[in-house]
Amino acid sequence: MSGLTHFDASGNAQMVDVSDKAETARVAVAEGHIKMSPQTLDIITEGRAKKGDVIGVAQLAGIMGAKKTPDLIPLCHPLPVTKVAVELSADPMLPGLRIEATVKTSGRTGVEMEALTAVSTAALTVYDMVKAVDKAMQIGGIRVILKDGGKSGRYEAK
Amino acid sequence: MSGLTHFDASGNAQMVDVSDKAETARVAVAEGHIKMSPQTLDIITEGRAKKGDVIGVAQLAGIMGAKKTPDLIPLCHPLPVTKVAVELSADPMLPGLRIEATVKTSGRTGVEMEALTAVSTAALTVYDMVKAVDKAMQIGGIRVILKDGGKSGRYEAK
Amino acid sequence: MSGLTHFDASGNAQMVDVSDKAETARVAVAEGHIKMSPQTLDIITEGRAKKGDVIGVAQLAGIMGAKKTPDLIPLCHPLPVTKVAVELSADPMLPGLRIEATVKTSGRTGVEMEALTAVSTAALTVYDMVKAVDKAMQIGGIRVILKDGGKSGRYEAK
Amino acid sequence: MSGLTHFDASGNAQMVDVSDKAETARVAVAEGHIKMSPQTLDIITEGRAKKGDVIGVAQLAGIMGAKKTPDLIPLCHPLPVTKVAVELSADPMLPGLRIEATVKTSGRTGVEMEALTAVSTAALTVYDMVKAVDKAMQIGGIRVILKDGGKSGRYEAK
Amino acid sequence: MSGLTHFDASGNAQMVDVSDKAETARVAVAEGHIKMSPQTLDIITEGRAKKGDVIGVAQLAGIMGAKKTPDLIPLCHPLPVTKVAVELSADPMLPGLRIEATVKTSGRTGVEMEALTAVSTAALTVYDMVKAVDKAMQIGGIRVILKDGGKSGRYEAK
Amino acid sequence: MSGLTHFDASGNAQMVDVSDKAETARVAVAEGHIKMSPQTLDIITEGRAKKGDVIGVAQLAGIMGAKKTPDLIPLCHPLPVTKVAVELSADPMLPGLRIEATVKTSGRTGVEMEALTAVSTAALTVYDMVKAVDKAMQIGGIRVILKDGGKSGRYEAK
Repeated sequence: MSGLTHFDASGNAQMVDVSDKAETARVAVAEGHIKMSPQTLDIITEGRAKKGDVIGVAQLAGIMGAKKTPDLIPLCHPLPVTKVAVELSADPMLPGLRIEATVKTSGRTGVEMEALTAVSTAALTVYDMVKAVDKAMQIGGIRVILKDGGKSGRYEAK
Repeated sequence: MSGLTHFDASGNAQMVDVSDKAETARVAVAEGHIKMSPQTLDIITEGRAKKGDVIGVAQLAGIMGAKKTPDLIPLCHPLPVTKVAVELSADPMLPGLRIEATVKTSGRTGVEMEALTAVSTAALTVYDMVKAVDKAMQIGGIRVILKDGGKSGRYEAK
Repeated sequence: MSGLTHFDASGNAQMVDVSDKAETARVAVAEGHIKMSPQTLDIITEGRAKKGDVIGVAQLAGIMGAKKTPDLIPLCHPLPVTKVAVELSADPMLPGLRIEATVKTSGRTGVEMEALTAVSTAALTVYDMVKAVDKAMQIGGIRVILKDGGKSGRYEAK
Repeated sequence: MSGLTHFDASGNAQMVDVSDKAETARVAVAEGHIKMSPQTLDIITEGRAKKGDVIGVAQLAGIMGAKKTPDLIPLCHPLPVTKVAVELSADPMLPGLRIEATVKTSGRTGVEMEALTAVSTAALTVYDMVKAVDKAMQIGGIRVILKDGGKSGRYEAK
Repeated sequence: MSGLTHFDASGNAQMVDVSDKAETARVAVAEGHIKMSPQTLDIITEGRAKKGDVIGVAQLAGIMGAKKTPDLIPLCHPLPVTKVAVELSADPMLPGLRIEATVKTSGRTGVEMEALTAVSTAALTVYDMVKAVDKAMQIGGIRVILKDGGKSGRYEAK
Repeated sequence: MSGLTHFDASGNAQMVDVSDKAETARVAVAEGHIKMSPQTLDIITEGRAKKGDVIGVAQLAGIMGAKKTPDLIPLCHPLPVTKVAVELSADPMLPGLRIEATVKTSGRTGVEMEALTAVSTAALTVYDMVKAVDKAMQIGGIRVILKDGGKSGRYEAK
């Protein structure tokens, strides 16, 4: 047995049965970043105030992306999320933008996929808006940093 | 002026006008990876043959993800893609899976966002299927490695 | 502070946290209309019986539109609606069609956006079906006339 | 005969056959507004600069809404739009926000439904974001003001 | 080699590359039926005139279903369909409803999947609307009866 | 009165009000098949092991199709499904593939439409992948074989 719950005993992919799990309050936080040249980061941070809010658009795209998770990830359960927040902040040391997403629900499964999808979608949206000036940007560091609620207990990334 | 074409002179976000661009053959290739413990990678590579094809599911999710790009990325033009291929391969040195996506179209704008979205969706799908055994997996290295067709010419990542 | 709950203290857009709200029975009713020439209204009302049911198609589009609300409205929570009804009636004094939508759910937030989206989608669908004979139609009067359930209490339009 | 092209001779709804129409450059402009109390308008216009950009979010929602038109309007043809711009401006005389959307394509049918859907979605998004402080807002004046390209020629609203 | 073009030489699923195919006029017709008790068929045919138009709703669902084909069928190319018509007719000998869908496009691949999806969706919608009085209905006979345009030439079912 | 709950007393289509129904555990099982030539079936069954997993792709498409049910079927309630499993097995006597889908939820209405949609989508996906070698395949036998939970009690097909 592989230990992978998304497959039955014959190896068929399935949406795991969560019917008997309790509806509990759940939260997940994911993070990631998009690296770029210092010049590109300057264009974004200056734009926030004046000539085009890349960060505002990416934030909204991340929130909407979280709602599309069960549509994108084949075996993901549909879940009525009760909160989504996405934050992007400039990090000159990267250089680039750091992204963090927090998702909550009251449901039968966790929302780490929603948080990861929010981060990914926000990062892709930054790439789309800035690609005319920098094609070499790179998206990375996407991982779950906190997951809580449900039977399997609290997980915190080291 | 910011140089960001996704904003007009007043800083309003817009879907760039490509009406006057020619319809040309376009291709884009993107790559990325998902890192995991060596044990997790073993479960996936063994599963392919026997008890659950993580790679096959992620591949399909990546292809379908490419088709959802204009739905996910706010200012992306809808484009009828003419080819999508996604490949995942085990890399024991990572350790983890390397992902590469190739997208083609005949259209007025490039398909690098479709290729990047395919890679991201495939990586997220791997995370979803394997998270029961490894929550510390990390998605990274997502970037465009080739883009060709259209007025701006060929781009190859260094 | 702006009083706008869809933004955090720094002005970032967010999907409001409703995790701690109780699931209660909620209802919302919205209305609107589409104005047209008397001749256009005649074509629609005659068609209902014989040669093309504009009202029937618009009604169905309104119901399906209500289900797409969280997909359309960026910060709207996804909600499993438990009833949607859309009614269109000819008003020769307008002249045009009056539209009313009723939506119910048992959930943590109200369904006025679902009711408004149903009305808007029905009106747009009428426009689409009749535009070949009348391009000057105008959609208006879209507002919430009743909202009940939840902590903020009953609202009725004056 | 009703003159309604969306129905066949027996009154069955259909997606009109445009196979034999030429692909031509097409543009449509639609407008609309959302009325509110002067206090509500103040909150929005002040927020733009500081504590929550209602107009920016609504603009983006309008652009994304245009892309969802064939999904919302049952008999609408899917079309790869080549430009979408949505502008919202404060009008203290209304008082409220005026909305204008411009959509272009190179295709076999017009894009007035895309422009109308962009305006409607932007207006609904304003309602959603501001409803906590003003439930009596009203959406109206939604109409096509310009349509050009294609066999039926130029249309301008009076 | 399997002859299945949806897989590459290593057996990976892919969206077939149609970039080099010519854009030609294409048409496909599919058919199917839903069998039911004679009493159920009576309710539907009487309803058309008076108390609920099952056939009209199913027809519209079929048309909208055709537009969702690339979203439903993983390796299907997105295509801007230029015509969709769905017809349902009562057949007392079945007894039940016969369904026929015609889809056209000008594109690089055929539209038989769109026609088949339209028939399936219309049949499922009939089931949904009538299931309260007859759970034993059965959907069958779904097949392509005509396909034309493109390099592989005309196909007609025997 | 027609007995069709999807229409009100005036014959208007509506999404039935289930607000007052209890949330109970519900399950539905549906079946269907796709008939083909024996040679085509051989290609599929051999492919599973080696050169292209038609069954694996169809299975996944069926699971994702179940999640799209409220989007496809106009009057269907949105429901957070808690389990979806789709199984395809070769039947040389047909000859072809037999398909069975099981769906569970805890909700206010049944999930037979989700199970039927899963079967239909899986069958359509098989057709899509194999149509290059066999256009005469036929989809049939789609019906509910079990439905349980909720007030109307257990239904089993004879």
